[in-house]
This record gives sequence, C-alpha cells and structure tokens, in this order.
Amino acid sequence: MEGMVRRDASPEVLQLWRNAECVAFDIDCTITINDSLDALGEFLGVGEQIQKITNAAMDGHLDLETALQQRLDAMNLTTQKIQAFVNSHPVEKRLVPNIRTLIEELQARNVEVFLISGGFRELILPVAKALGVPKSNIFANRFVYMADDNAEEDQVSSQSLRVTTFDPKEPTSRGGGKPEAIRRIREKRPYNTIVMVGDGITDLEAGQETGGADLFIGYGGVVQREAVMKEADWFVDDHAVLAEALPRLKVAMIGSGAWACASMRMVAENARSRRIFYPKVKMWVFEEEHNGEKLTELINRTHENPKYLPGCHFGDNVEACSDIVSVVQDADILIFCTPHQFVHRLCLQIKSHVKPGCFAISLIKGMRVRTDGPQLISTMIQRTLMVDCSVLMGANIANQIGPGSLCEATIASKNVEHARLLKLLFHTEYFYIDIISDVEGAEMSGTLKNVVALAAGFADGSGYLDNCKAVILREGLKEMRELSIRLYPSVRESTFFEACGVADLIATCSGGRNHKVAMEFAKRGGSDSFDTLEAELLHGQKLQGTLTSHEVQSCLKIKGWEADFPLLKVVDLIVNGVYEPADIARFRDLNLFPIVKSPTAEALAASEDAAMLDSIQRRVSILEVRGLV
Amino acid sequence: MEGMVRRDASPEVLQLWRNAECVAFDIDCTITINDSLDALGEFLGVGEQIQKITNAAMDGHLDLETALQQRLDAMNLTTQKIQAFVNSHPVEKRLVPNIRTLIEELQARNVEVFLISGGFRELILPVAKALGVPKSNIFANRFVYMADDNAEEDQVSSQSLRVTTFDPKEPTSRGGGKPEAIRRIREKRPYNTIVMVGDGITDLEAGQETGGADLFIGYGGVVQREAVMKEADWFVDDHAVLAEALPRLKVAMIGSGAWACASMRMVAENARSRRIFYPKVKMWVFEEEHNGEKLTELINRTHENPKYLPGCHFGDNVEACSDIVSVVQDADILIFCTPHQFVHRLCLQIKSHVKPGCFAISLIKGMRVRTDGPQLISTMIQRTLMVDCSVLMGANIANQIGPGSLCEATIASKNVEHARLLKLLFHTEYFYIDIISDVEGAEMSGTLKNVVALAAGFADGSGYLDNCKAVILREGLKEMRELSIRLYPSVRESTFFEACGVADLIATCSGGRNHKVAMEFAKRGGSDSFDTLEAELLHGQKLQGTLTSHEVQSCLKIKGWEADFPLLKVVDLIVNGVYEPADIARFRDLNLFPIVKSPTAEALAASEDAAMLDSIQRRVSILEVRGLV
Repeated sequence: MEGMVRRDASPEVLQLWRNAECVAFDIDCTITINDSLDALGEFLGVGEQIQKITNAAMDGHLDLETALQQRLDAMNLTTQKIQAFVNSHPVEKRLVPNIRTLIEELQARNVEVFLISGGFRELILPVAKALGVPKSNIFANRFVYMADDNAEEDQVSSQSLRVTTFDPKEPTSRGGGKPEAIRRIREKRPYNTIVMVGDGITDLEAGQETGGADLFIGYGGVVQREAVMKEADWFVDDHAVLAEALPRLKVAMIGSGAWACASMRMVAENARSRRIFYPKVKMWVFEEEHNGEKLTELINRTHENPKYLPGCHFGDNVEACSDIVSVVQDADILIFCTPHQFVHRLCLQIKSHVKPGCFAISLIKGMRVRTDGPQLISTMIQRTLMVDCSVLMGANIANQIGPGSLCEATIASKNVEHARLLKLLFHTEYFYIDIISDVEGAEMSGTLKNVVALAAGFADGSGYLDNCKAVILREGLKEMRELSIRLYPSVRESTFFEACGVADLIATCSGGRNHKVAMEFAKRGGSDSFDTLEAELLHGQKLQGTLTSHEVQSCLKIKGWEADFPLLKVVDLIVNGVYEPADIARFRDLNLFPIVKSPTAEALAASEDAAMLDSIQRRVSILEVRGLV
Repeated sequence: MEGMVRRDASPEVLQLWRNAECVAFDIDCTITINDSLDALGEFLGVGEQIQKITNAAMDGHLDLETALQQRLDAMNLTTQKIQAFVNSHPVEKRLVPNIRTLIEELQARNVEVFLISGGFRELILPVAKALGVPKSNIFANRFVYMADDNAEEDQVSSQSLRVTTFDPKEPTSRGGGKPEAIRRIREKRPYNTIVMVGDGITDLEAGQETGGADLFIGYGGVVQREAVMKEADWFVDDHAVLAEALPRLKVAMIGSGAWACASMRMVAENARSRRIFYPKVKMWVFEEEHNGEKLTELINRTHENPKYLPGCHFGDNVEACSDIVSVVQDADILIFCTPHQFVHRLCLQIKSHVKPGCFAISLIKGMRVRTDGPQLISTMIQRTLMVDCSVLMGANIANQIGPGSLCEATIASKNVEHARLLKLLFHTEYFYIDIISDVEGAEMSGTLKNVVALAAGFADGSGYLDNCKAVILREGLKEMRELSIRLYPSVRESTFFEACGVADLIATCSGGRNHKVAMEFAKRGGSDSFDTLEAELLHGQKLQGTLTSHEVQSCLKIKGWEADFPLLKVVDLIVNGVYEPADIARFRDLNLFPIVKSPTAEALAASEDAAMLDSIQRRVSILEVRGLV
C-alpha cells in the first residue's frame, strides 16, 4: 500500500499548492494532537464511553448526528465544565509540530486560511485565536444550552447552563459537511484554488465532491488512515514539508553605501528568519578598491562593507556582486539605495532584465528636476522599469541602527500587498515600521529634510541655541509640507507626523551628515567649500543636501514660488556664498525676495473697488502689510 | 481771536475722541505738507496759474467743479505725467509730522481710518498704502482719461491717455462732498462716533451738516484758516496731541520666575515703545529674600530678577510689588505666569478686585485634575475671574530669549481683538508671534510637552542616540495630539505644527529644565530623587514635568485611557521608580498594560458572526494581532 501513497507532490500538485488562494484545515488530529471531544470526555472521566461512540461512527455503524448527540448526552456538559477543560488544556500544548509556521507562511503570502471541524466552536476558538484565524473563518458545530434545573444556585446565570444538543444548521453536524463548508466559502469569495488539509475521511470527501476543494492534502502526523493515504493528492507527515514547498521571494539590494548596508542588516536578518524570502540576498556594489582589495570580494569575505559602514555585519546570506544585471534579473523585490544622481542610468541599464511581476522600493532621497517640474525617484523607477515602486523613509542615522537601539521608518506604498511584504522584509524589533499610502508625501519629506538639515547645521555652527533651532526646524517642516502639497495635491498633512516626517527631520537635524557638514561650514565661516568638507568629513560618502537644495531651487524657479519658501531660499544663498551661515536665523527678515502678502491684503490691493470687508479682518491685514504685527 | 480757539479739548470732546469708532482724515495739508494738485501744477511748470484758480475757488469766486475742470485743463495731464510726478514725490517726504503714528495708534485700537479728499485718487493711493489705509476706505476724485490724438505712438496704450475731465459721480467733486462722504460711511457701517480731522472749510462742513461727523478736529500744522480755528471742536497743530490723548491699556504681570522675567522683557519693551500700552507695567512678586534684600526691592533697584533670571534687564518701566490686589486692580491686561499649582488660589484672591472689561493671558503650563477630568489653567482663570483668557505657548527656553537670538511663540485666543492686542504686547523682532484660535490645543501641547521632555531626558541620559530620540519625540507628539483631541474635540491637528507644538517640543526636549533634570536622573541611574535634583540643578525653579506626569496619569485613569498612551505611562513609571530610565526606549514592548488592538482586530473579536471583511484588511490585522508585523 505504501507504494501508492503520494509522499512527493507531482509537478501539477505542487503548482496547485503554490497557487492556492485559500487553504482549509481540519482541526482534530490535523492542527491539534487529539480529538477535542475525546479529550473532553477523558477530562470528564467518560473517555472510554465517548471513544466507543466515536469508533462506531468511524466504522459507519452510526450516522454522524446520532453519534454527536450520544456523546453530548454521555458528557452531561455545562458551561463550567467546558471552561474548566479549556483552561486546563492550553493551546500551545495541543498544536502539532510546525502548524503555526505553516499558517503564518500562508497568511504572509496572502493565502486565506479557514478551519473546518466536526468539533465544537467553544473548544476551537482558543486554537483559532492562537493561529490568527478570524472567527468568521471557522466552520464548526455549536453547542445548544438550556438552563440547568439541577444547578445549585437559585438564579439562572451563564454559569448554570447545560448543553442539551447541537445546532443542526451547521453543515459540520452531518455527513458531507466539509464539502458543503467549502461550497459556502466559494459562494462568498471566488477563490480560483482551494486546498483542503486533513487526516480524516470527512476531510477527504471535501476534495472529492463537486464544488469542493481543488486539492486534498492528507496529513499523517497524528493518525494515518488507510483511505486517506491512498486517496490524497499528496500525503505528508509534517507540515514543514508544505511550508517548504511554498514559493519564496528573492530580494536584490542595489547599492552598498552606509544606508544600504544599515538596511541590509534588517533585510538579511529577515531573509534568514522569514521563510517567505529566499535566504540569499544579492547586493549590487559599485566596484572599487579598498585597502588593495576589490570591494565585492571584501564584502563577501567579511560580510560587512568596511569602506562605508564598518562594523555593520549583515551575515553570510548576502552576496555582493558588481554586475547589476545578474543581481536584478531573478529578483522579486528590488531595493534601490544609491546616491540619487545615479538611479536613472542604472534603471536604463536593467530595464529589459527585470523579472516580470517584480516590484521595487526606493530608500533614496532626492529629486530629478526637469523643465516641467520635479520628478520623484520612485516615480522615475516606476516609469522606467514599469514596476510598482514604494518608498521607505524615516529617522535613520545609518551608524545608529542595530540591536539595543530604537529606530523607526515609514513604508509608503500604493499597493497594500507590497507594503505588507516590504514590512516583513524591513521590520525588526529594533527597526519599527509603519505603513502609509502617501508615497509622494513620504518621499518629498525624506528629500527636503536634507535641505532643512543644512539650515540646522548653519544654526548650530553659528552658535544659536535651542529656541532658534526649534524655529528653524518648525519653519523647515512647514515649508516641506507646503511644497509637497503644492507639487502633489494628494499629499496628506498627517504624513509629516509620521516617522518619515517630523522624526526623520529631528534625527537628521542633529545627527545626520548634512547637518554635520553644514555645521562645520558655519564654524569655519564658510572658508572651506562643501566639496572640501565632504571629502574631509564624509570619507567617500556623498552630501545630498547641497545638491537637493539646488534641485529644489530649480523647481521653485520653474514654478515661480521662490518667495514662498524663505528658509529653503536662504539655505541655498548660504550654500552659494551669497549670505553668511549666521544669516539663517534672519530668514524672515532678509529682503531677498518680494514680501509674501497675506491673501486678504492681496485681495484688497487687487480690487480697488472691493466691497468693505469685515472690519477686524481688514485691520489685522493692514497691520500685517505694514509689518506692525 | 486766539482766545476763542479750543486748543485744549473739553472733557466731552476728549470723551468723544477716545470713543471714536471711525476717524476720517482730509489729505492735502492735513496728512501731506501740501495740496497735491498745486504740487502737480508746479511740477508741470504751471504752478502759478493753478494757484490762482485754487485761490479763486477758496475765496468763493468759483464753484468747486469749475475750479477743478479749469485746473485739469491748465495742466494737460497724461498718464505719463502723473506717473512721473508720483515717482518724483515719495510719500515719506510729503507726510506731516506724527501722522503715521496717529494712524497706527488708531488702527491698533481698532478704530477705522478713512481718507476723504478733494484731490485725485491716483495721487492719493501711495499715501494710503504707506499709511495702511485700504483702497476701499478712500473717498477722492477720479481722473477721466481719453486717448490722446497727439500721442507720438501710433497705437493707443495706457501710456498715451490724456486726462480730459473728472468723474462727477464722486461726492468730493462738488460742494458738500465731505459730509456726503461721511453719510456714505454711515450707510455702510453703523459707527456710533465718527470724527473728521482736517484743515479746510470743506472739512469743517463735514462736522456741521446732519449725518456728518460727530466731532470735527481742526489741524493747523500746515495751514491755519480762521474759520476752521474758530469753529473746530478742538484745534491742534500737531497730530501727536491727538495720539497722546488716546486711551492706553495697563498691563500687569502675575509672577516673577524665569519665564515671567523673560517675557517681561518683551512686554516692558512694547509698553515703552507702543503708545497703546501704558508704559508702567506692574509685576506681582512672591516676596522672599535674596542675598539679604527683599526681592521686590531688588527688582525695583536693578530692573531684573537676579534670583530667577539674572542678566535679563527689562528696563525701568517695570514696578515689582508683592501686593497682588494693587497689581491687578487697574490693569486692562492680566498676564499669568506662576507655577501652575498656585494659580487657583491667586485667582480666588483677586476675583473681586479685577477691573471690569479686562482680559487675561496665561503663560502657564499644567492642568488641574478634578474628578470629572482635567481643567486647563486658562479655563480655570476664565471661570474664576469671569474674563476672557488667551494663552501664549512656544519654544521658549527663558535664558535664550533676547536680541540677537530667534524665538517664536503662539498666541491662542478665542477673541480676535484680544489676540491682536496681545500680539502687540509680546511680539518683538527677536520674539515672533503667530495667532491661532485653538486655545485648548495650544495649552494642552504646552502642558504635555513637559512630560515628553522627561522621556527625552531619560533617553539622552541613558546614552541613546538621535534615531531613538527622534522616535520618542514623534511618539510624544502623537500622544500629545491624541490626548488633546480626545479631551477637547475642537482641538486641531494643525496646532501641533505651530510654535506651541512641534517647535516647543523640540526646544524643550533639548534645552529645557525638565529634560535637564531627567537626563541627570538617568545618568545617576535613578539614585537621586527628583526633589534632590530639582534643588541641586534648578536653583529654586520648579520642575513641572513630574507634577504634570502625575496629573496626566490621574486624568488617564479617570478616563480609562492609560493603555492608549504607552510613552506617557512609561515616563510615569520611571518617575515613580517602577522602571529604569533606560526602559524609555522599550515603551512599545513593555507589557505594562493590555495590548492596544487595532479597531479592525477589535471589531473581529467583538462580533463572532461578523460578515467577511475585505480579505486584505483582515489579513493585515491578523498579523498585527499576532505581532508578526
């Protein structure tokens, strides 16, 4: 008989399993190590009697309904007894090996998990909760209670109810209940492929009747029934076999600078620990020499990048490679993390080599300025490669990330499914991820904060104190918000309260490289150029803020908005040597540009014959125009 | 004749002037040093001819309309000539002394200013603009232009238009025009008291006809006309006399700590320089000895408070006094700036002594917890004294405020008029004020940020770096927002982007006293109590954060919201020695309270029979429940 058991899945079966959209599990002896009703009988001291009835039903001598009723009668159940059983049988001790992992893996892949059981709902709920299966995904029998005339207390309470029978409307209370449950699932959602996993004859039926499961997998980890073994499309003794067979996502990191290395630590860790990712992560490295050794070889030997982020080990599942095409061609997830000026060229290089169905995430800050306005890096990646591109932005000083510290970031994505997978890829206990949908807001915030960091650096380097720095950060945040919303009306204010907004700004303005260089620029009174300082202080890393400042001003010029963003403007004038670093504190007063008038004052000026406005409003605006208030 | 001229205002006239709601000014020879049409004639080389016609009209030999037309004919005006005249006669050189101050003073008091002139609008607009008078508040004549057949250019452009006549519809083009203008003002707005100020007979008429001005003030600074001198209700040669006679607001500061002294510098400066305030400002001081001298005497001798903010001189117009009743009884504006635990008692003390019509502003951070929830300090002041109470909150480290630095604050007020006056009282070039109406949001933010500052201090003292601090500040801002909005649904998210929100938080979390003490607490591993550290580090100043933390927790307990504010909770547990300062970075993980579930997961748990939710949404929430993501 053993020869007939399909212990290895055929290619067709494997294909069905990998494409499953819904997997329904039996519970007793498939998810838990015993039959819950049998265990309950044993707990109540009527185990033998119950077992006898169960066997009679199994052997076909009793129909399911009669057997169910007989067992209930034998147990004389009350709510108290049920509660006592549940309390004394913790879920953790009842689960079969690897079932938790399998269900997690399925759910991580967006596969809907159902539980279908001839057992009773009250006994199943703790199991469902432990496995993260919502109550609405359970098909099981229901006890029917009545007041217990023999209860000791006079008053009827929920504690004095007795189980009399079961709810006959539940399909699982009768023969053919499991295929019926599968049909009900299909009615609600049109899954293309539904798989049933179980140990019993009733489970097997679910795969044999019309409208039932498309694939039946037999599980023999607790009981091995001959019919099931013979008839199952695939028969396994360990759920790990099923988990292993699920598809895995391959990840490629494009970039190897400080931030790429810092984030690679989380990515590599999650690729090792989460089965949904292929453990090996490829990393594209711009080949150069470091201490006489090729950087790729150095990284592959030491599992860190000693040039840009020494000390940050990402483990041996990372493979550095200087050939961009070989890095990206089989990847399901592309992580972009290079200086922003290089991305466009890289995208053109890999355009015809990316895997169909892959998606991207950009960790890059910056923008691409074109005559019709700016283009976000994520948009550029999306348009060039024709793949969805999310962004990850946050308060991330690269050399401060790791176990024992606390860090957070925002993933912004238009695709909920991608966002979820990306969170699994980046989230660790020391790197906390929130998800939002406002890609433009997150990326603009991440980009513009580098310019504000220059302002903060000028302030710190000029000796201004906390109050002044707070003014500059607030004005910076205000201009970041204002510019983002003007360029992308879909941008939401709330985005700037996220990790990618105010938190990133605060961290960057005290510990970031742009702040560091700008502070030194101010301390030296502007005597050394930014190029000199970059070379001296950043050890080969690039300064993004000055470049972004230039891009932002180009964009503001195209739009005619220069005067509306005084802080961004003054930063640029300081960067270009027109103003002194200490002038940063006078961004409101410097008459660099026409005075920004309030709309009310403007309206007054525009219409000579304007009707008399509300008197108070007008007076306030008059004072404003005159600078009195 | 001189004896009949009323150079001193009678009590009735003074009363009318002080109660004026609207003041209308003649322009030529009242606001400007000459007649603009005469000056234009002179500029064009036909001065004598124009003067002759003007005189004939003045003497009654010509009616106004004929005189106007004759003068236009004599000048042969074009747009180019008018523009050339305006450009070569800058407003600043044409204003009579003190007119700018007078108009500013009137407008600061919410008195509406109008200009009524027999001159031409084109010549008046630059004057109106310089004085902050909106175009809709001008009555003047209008040129009528026609294409100039003699223009050199072939095409008709605005540069080749010639003035042919004037618009006869303007009341000022004919006799009785000025009283007619006053009647038109009355038609639009029901002012109780309108005052006309001018130098001419036509101005005088405005006060003599029915429906005209309630008071006519003659101005003789340029020309002194006999009839005007004789008939004017009040005759002045200098606008300063009128400005001096306007009412002034008396200001009282209740408190003399560091923040009271720092803000007193701005208040005293504005009381000296802005005529709307009475220069002498009283300051209530809790009497104590400092270096063997009474603190009040010390302050009145040195014009600073050497105990709480040495080096901050507020000038000799501040009078320190330990008798609270004498400080507040004649004040129009009460500034509250004491430790928050003392305010209620002070309010009860002064309750029956405050001046009717006065209003208050609170600079105090803290809350008063009662069994029905918290009460804002501003609400308590408002309810106890029955006066309107605004608040001023912002990024204000007391010893960093002064010329050469940059600082900002938010005034939140439900009363636009009070807000405007308070801005005049606090705003200086180094202390920038914005106005909002969300009092609750501003005060809650100012209060709660002191608790977040403790969190930031614990983080800094425990050696956590920028990323971690940014996480804590962001979570702090989030919990500040959330708690404020839950307690006061009128609170607006945007308030937290103001100076009183994110800027105050950033400054306080790096340079404030709560941060300082908490950092030291953490550095010493919690070995010294907050009382010890307060005494050692704050030199008599009070630590607000620990008290506020206690108040916040009382409030959260009353509301049953403790679990929803993990950062605030962990701060309190650290303050109370339950957790270590370094635990601040684990605020998300510490199982101090029931896990906060997402609404979706909660909804799922609540309703066993919930309809099948959107599959993706549910899966995300499942992962959340399980802590997978």
